[in-house]
Amino acid sequence: MLDGTNFVAGERRSGKTIFRAREAATGLEIAPDFHEADANDIADACAAAADAQRAFASLPLSQRATFMRLVADKIDALGDDLTQRAMRESGLPEARLNGERGRTVGQLRLFADEVEHGSWQRLRIDHADASRTPPKPDLRLRMVPLGPVAVFGASNFPLAFSVAGGDTAAAFAAGCCVVVKGHPAHPGTSELVAGAICAAVAECGLPAGVFSLLNGTSNDLGAALVSDPHIAAVGFTGSRSGGLALMKIAAERPVPIPVYAEMSSVNPVVLMPARLAEGAEELARSYVGSLSMGAGQFCTNPGIVLAVESPALGQFLDEVAKSLGTVPAQTMLTSGIASSFGEGVDRLSTLPGARLLGSGKEGSTACGRAQVYTVDGESFAANEAYSNEIFGPVSIIVTCKSMEQVKAILAGMEGQLTATLHMNSDDHAEAAKLLPALEQIAGRIIANSWPTGVDVTHAMVHGGPFPATSDGRSTSVGTLAIDRFLRPVSYQDMPQGLLPSALRDASSGSIRRINGQY
Amino acid sequence: MLDGTNFVAGERRSGKTIFRAREAATGLEIAPDFHEADANDIADACAAAADAQRAFASLPLSQRATFMRLVADKIDALGDDLTQRAMRESGLPEARLNGERGRTVGQLRLFADEVEHGSWQRLRIDHADASRTPPKPDLRLRMVPLGPVAVFGASNFPLAFSVAGGDTAAAFAAGCCVVVKGHPAHPGTSELVAGAICAAVAECGLPAGVFSLLNGTSNDLGAALVSDPHIAAVGFTGSRSGGLALMKIAAERPVPIPVYAEMSSVNPVVLMPARLAEGAEELARSYVGSLSMGAGQFCTNPGIVLAVESPALGQFLDEVAKSLGTVPAQTMLTSGIASSFGEGVDRLSTLPGARLLGSGKEGSTACGRAQVYTVDGESFAANEAYSNEIFGPVSIIVTCKSMEQVKAILAGMEGQLTATLHMNSDDHAEAAKLLPALEQIAGRIIANSWPTGVDVTHAMVHGGPFPATSDGRSTSVGTLAIDRFLRPVSYQDMPQGLLPSALRDASSGSIRRINGQY
Repeated sequence: MLDGTNFVAGERRSGKTIFRAREAATGLEIAPDFHEADANDIADACAAAADAQRAFASLPLSQRATFMRLVADKIDALGDDLTQRAMRESGLPEARLNGERGRTVGQLRLFADEVEHGSWQRLRIDHADASRTPPKPDLRLRMVPLGPVAVFGASNFPLAFSVAGGDTAAAFAAGCCVVVKGHPAHPGTSELVAGAICAAVAECGLPAGVFSLLNGTSNDLGAALVSDPHIAAVGFTGSRSGGLALMKIAAERPVPIPVYAEMSSVNPVVLMPARLAEGAEELARSYVGSLSMGAGQFCTNPGIVLAVESPALGQFLDEVAKSLGTVPAQTMLTSGIASSFGEGVDRLSTLPGARLLGSGKEGSTACGRAQVYTVDGESFAANEAYSNEIFGPVSIIVTCKSMEQVKAILAGMEGQLTATLHMNSDDHAEAAKLLPALEQIAGRIIANSWPTGVDVTHAMVHGGPFPATSDGRSTSVGTLAIDRFLRPVSYQDMPQGLLPSALRDASSGSIRRINGQY
Repeated sequence: MLDGTNFVAGERRSGKTIFRAREAATGLEIAPDFHEADANDIADACAAAADAQRAFASLPLSQRATFMRLVADKIDALGDDLTQRAMRESGLPEARLNGERGRTVGQLRLFADEVEHGSWQRLRIDHADASRTPPKPDLRLRMVPLGPVAVFGASNFPLAFSVAGGDTAAAFAAGCCVVVKGHPAHPGTSELVAGAICAAVAECGLPAGVFSLLNGTSNDLGAALVSDPHIAAVGFTGSRSGGLALMKIAAERPVPIPVYAEMSSVNPVVLMPARLAEGAEELARSYVGSLSMGAGQFCTNPGIVLAVESPALGQFLDEVAKSLGTVPAQTMLTSGIASSFGEGVDRLSTLPGARLLGSGKEGSTACGRAQVYTVDGESFAANEAYSNEIFGPVSIIVTCKSMEQVKAILAGMEGQLTATLHMNSDDHAEAAKLLPALEQIAGRIIANSWPTGVDVTHAMVHGGPFPATSDGRSTSVGTLAIDRFLRPVSYQDMPQGLLPSALRDASSGSIRRINGQY
């Protein structure tokens, strides 16, 4: 069923170098052999994407949407085969992967609706005024696609942030062709999904260059892809070092291109005093659930919790320790991630002031053992290493002397994907003082839940100031993500017949801003 | 009247190093002495901007707009003093500078209206749905300012793209404090305008850090400004080498920041055959007017004209040569620009295939002499040096064998601010084939006029793919320019009282997208 080859603009290509996936739980190799893409495959995929770009971009929006819905249907049709393969490759449980498939196809369909809604085109018309000095021209603006996008599959969402994940959906929605570098931890999952996309491309009669999938285990493949002159933008979710490397390559190209890298975040959570006094134990249990969910392998894992010392905080800590004791060890995505997690926790345990509060159950070396550390506010502030993300089920509770200390710690933080306040109405006055700092550091500010859910909708921001992302002006989840792959073009005094149809006088449909008014 | 000091958050600061402006026409120094800003001044200005950022960003929009209108009023009130000083420093004629002042204050007022219009906030609300699995949270999105913006004054628009120019207006509109590095060619003009801004800051009771102006002649000042950790974005209009240098500094910071550099463009113009046959002489005269206007010192100067060989093209060339003969030499902005122009034209004249078609009148060494060269399509395509911008009143007419050759040349071009088609209805079918290539290379596509007018309005794009700008996803003219200085923040399940007022249920005013619908 899987043949292990690359998809280069619809053509299945084998190669000289072979690798295999490994079962996450056991570390054992799984058939079949996968073929690494070489320099020719990369160049051909990118050239085909550039060739296909014009035809894809100029499809009527309804046809672009139809294509995306067909991709979703074909991923749905992969059914249990997809889930089973993804389970073996990622170690993630069945329910989670079925949920993730729902999210993946839901996201494609939401973006398809958004394509038809059309407001992302930002249509603007300013009519001419010949009586003005100098005469005012007729100007009409719309957004056009940047060009072919290189998408890097993420290890921690083998469906929702991989081959047909959020970046691909947003790029397609913007009218950009996509070349995916598949994540080597789940090549079989990637092949199944790529097959679905290619079938939809063919069935819609689109040029095959609209989509390619390249397999590989080396960083060179990614570097060559980002360096290819046909590539106009990059979408990446992964480590900070990986994201920084891609940013450097993109900035040093003869023609620099934007990189949207979602990299690292410790997602600070503040337990406000009144809320903590009211529900310490319930908060403790939901916290442990959030930090250990999916073996903590979420970009929005609550890595840092801040609270002021109080008897209620004592209760909270006790309940966290107790609750943690029941958390089973969970298989991590790859052996590399499992060992990095172990090393990260070892480093954390030796930081001045770090105290192990409690641990979950121990498992095999493939597993992540849930752990929570405490540290006092002063030691935390004195040691930057506390703020480094450790990818996995670990979190640090910072016990502070005062809300002033909480505020100072927040204000000194790097950019984050999220910041969270647990509060009740008695905390609002104090919370209002923290909000400006939270707005400055984070892309999403959450009240009274844990950050690990990321809804795919219009008002979601999954982004944030550097180093949470490489480019805090954008989001990688939600319909606003389309904007990342667009640029504006203005048409001056263009005859009606030569205007893009959405900008003609007679056009109706998408919202337009005419002479400044909607 | 001028005292030559820097404005560091409202404080007038002198310094150890002195420089003077030079009269553009004579090269002679003009009083008074100007004081170069040093490292302390830069650090203090940026720190004050960061301190003021929260207060400025949280002003009610109506007050932000009032401040911007007051800046415009105070620039108007500078009256003839401003024009006279700008004339001496820039060599630009009085009428042009009065027009440019009108554009500058008009732009501030347009952005003030845009601030109140509020659509740039991109308000989005997705209501909660507790019945969904998992429950859907309430999510509300708005754009917030990036933070303090460093603005580099441009030499060629001492008012409209300098201290209170387009970048400053857009940054203020976005709620960002501004630190300007004044252009050393017009420090007196800069001081007058900065005085107007500082007076408006004080009169509105805003923190003084909202605005600073730093003087200097060295590149180190600009580098230090872009490196300052408080600076969140950069606006620059100038040379390609200058823009590239700032991009590199910004990308290598511990926290990289966006650079909006408007750098270089040769603005290709195509004379379509039917239009040329119909009006060769009229086109020739308007072309000469456009390329020599303001001594050719516009980013949108028509540097390259493409046309297919024909008798009408012969007529066009004859009339261009004739028309050029009457063009007076004009003072250039600085002696440096005048000598660079001379060197650029010398290099052009030695390129294989280059033939001088005609020249304007000769003037002093401070002047630019209008010149037009011709070259055949093959020689043009064979030599990249033809595509380098020469800043000043020079243009190249490329005589092509066929429309296919025109199309191939366009498709091979670097990114441009503009691309222009002169055509009549008999040309439309052929023009339609060129448009996709023009969309790919340019930010603005113009029909039947010359590119040198840039209207400040909603649908203007003054931007384009690299190297026209460092970031083709934006414009530096028109209200869409606000977007450059914003990033999205989402609020999840936030109590009404803690939400920004524009996102509360009860708010009315700015357009909002609620559950996907406007």
